[in-house]
Amino acid sequence: MKRRCVVAVIGAGDAPRAICKLAFELGREIAKRGAVLVNGGRTGVMEFAAAGARKEGGHTIGILPGYDRSAANRHIEFAIATGIGEARNAVIVASADAVIALPGEGGTLAEIGFAKKFGKPIVALDSWPEIEGLRRAETPVEAVAIALKLAAAR
Amino acid sequence: MKRRCVVAVIGAGDAPRAICKLAFELGREIAKRGAVLVNGGRTGVMEFAAAGARKEGGHTIGILPGYDRSAANRHIEFAIATGIGEARNAVIVASADAVIALPGEGGTLAEIGFAKKFGKPIVALDSWPEIEGLRRAETPVEAVAIALKLAAAR
Amino acid sequence: MKRRCVVAVIGAGDAPRAICKLAFELGREIAKRGAVLVNGGRTGVMEFAAAGARKEGGHTIGILPGYDRSAANRHIEFAIATGIGEARNAVIVASADAVIALPGEGGTLAEIGFAKKFGKPIVALDSWPEIEGLRRAETPVEAVAIALKLAAAR
Amino acid sequence: MKRRCVVAVIGAGDAPRAICKLAFELGREIAKRGAVLVNGGRTGVMEFAAAGARKEGGHTIGILPGYDRSAANRHIEFAIATGIGEARNAVIVASADAVIALPGEGGTLAEIGFAKKFGKPIVALDSWPEIEGLRRAETPVEAVAIALKLAAAR
Repeated sequence: MKRRCVVAVIGAGDAPRAICKLAFELGREIAKRGAVLVNGGRTGVMEFAAAGARKEGGHTIGILPGYDRSAANRHIEFAIATGIGEARNAVIVASADAVIALPGEGGTLAEIGFAKKFGKPIVALDSWPEIEGLRRAETPVEAVAIALKLAAAR
Repeated sequence: MKRRCVVAVIGAGDAPRAICKLAFELGREIAKRGAVLVNGGRTGVMEFAAAGARKEGGHTIGILPGYDRSAANRHIEFAIATGIGEARNAVIVASADAVIALPGEGGTLAEIGFAKKFGKPIVALDSWPEIEGLRRAETPVEAVAIALKLAAAR
Repeated sequence: MKRRCVVAVIGAGDAPRAICKLAFELGREIAKRGAVLVNGGRTGVMEFAAAGARKEGGHTIGILPGYDRSAANRHIEFAIATGIGEARNAVIVASADAVIALPGEGGTLAEIGFAKKFGKPIVALDSWPEIEGLRRAETPVEAVAIALKLAAAR
Repeated sequence: MKRRCVVAVIGAGDAPRAICKLAFELGREIAKRGAVLVNGGRTGVMEFAAAGARKEGGHTIGILPGYDRSAANRHIEFAIATGIGEARNAVIVASADAVIALPGEGGTLAEIGFAKKFGKPIVALDSWPEIEGLRRAETPVEAVAIALKLAAAR
């Protein structure tokens, strides 16, 4: 079995509506392109990205901080209850072939740090201008296209 | 979306052929019953259980100790690269609704310990007579039936 | 700097008085012998072992499941806030040169499993007769003597 | 027992000499002020900070990524073998009352992200101008003074 490409979408758990809309479009595009979505399984960017992916019939994996799988949002198909708290951010990034970043705070910054450490391609969609070494995209379609291309080239 | 029941199959990574055959039958039965298989994603019991589940079209999740997703056996559909080493045993158990144990060694014993700690139903198939508090099954079909019944009752 | 030998004492967080007394004596003996005590940093066996070690001026390290260092018992000198939940049991065992087990439940069983997996010497003090491959001791002094001897031989 | 204040010093494992010298001075000052040093236990900034702290008789804790305690640098008094890989960065930050950052790369960025997430005070010594919300210091003495003041105010 050839395993599908896996893309992580990271960003704030309490993102404003406009960012959530971008997350939804990212999820849709990831699924349309046949890739799997992985993220933290909770609210905000995580929930809308998963909703978008499911709308197109894609697979969604949520890497939860706690032990309660029912804490996953309802668009998560496979809920992994790590119980390892915020350290689960490293697992999200390690389990992806590429990372797409939306605006976020400390947790998202930690994920970007891990993506750099692990040498994973990172595409910033309208966000994180202060961090060097990220690829830049202006639309969800462009972000996913870059992410999949970089993932394939690894 | 109602999430499917998830069953962990645990046991030795270097199990003899007879045990691997039981693992294969467990995987088949889990998939036939519509449940998802989760395990450590590597060799032996993990590989044969995943092969059985995939043969019946079931979903298989491998919770790997390292960062390399390609270390998963080829029957793992979704490879989670935790990078947290043997501590990933806690994640396997926490991510399951029930655990079915085959013969194993220290890693399997740790998983049984976590299953007790987390209050997850544990079904021992022809194994672990020395550990109290496990349910006993004599065939893969019986083990899966008990596991699913106990999982549903939680 | 030659690092001191580190001994883990494991057992129930809600152990009865007689077991706690054994834990206290284990802690005392570990400190008297110049070794460092590591454990889960909480109550019961963990608290009494740490109290014993501190009484003799020994160092005590508590590997906590959560993020709150103030959750450590007051005899823990160095509180490590792992935030990784019960998976911290693997860290306790990995950070020790030898493990001494008192009666316990699932968490203790997980630690014994990890100790076997990691090839760490395990001394059972009046406990765990059902588990093979452990060394047996009848008094705290004997348990520590065996643990230090096995640790030195690694 | 009142527990001592714990300060994490974070930065590159392959830092140039000038940065290592700053790390050494940070370690010295942390120990002089009676605080405990925690870090990742390896090379570069981690090694020099620990050397400085030990020179002043301070305690040093190294939170290692792997299972081999002998991988700690020789100035680490207490080596915690987490085995959880880079996720150990979350443990370093969670175990500190304040964080002092020197220049670094992905791993250090992940630690800064976690420190923000956990609400820990972060003092940047001549580094990370691009990250908002950090306190700035120009000398090791000033950095430690700010870190201890912020830690005490929590």
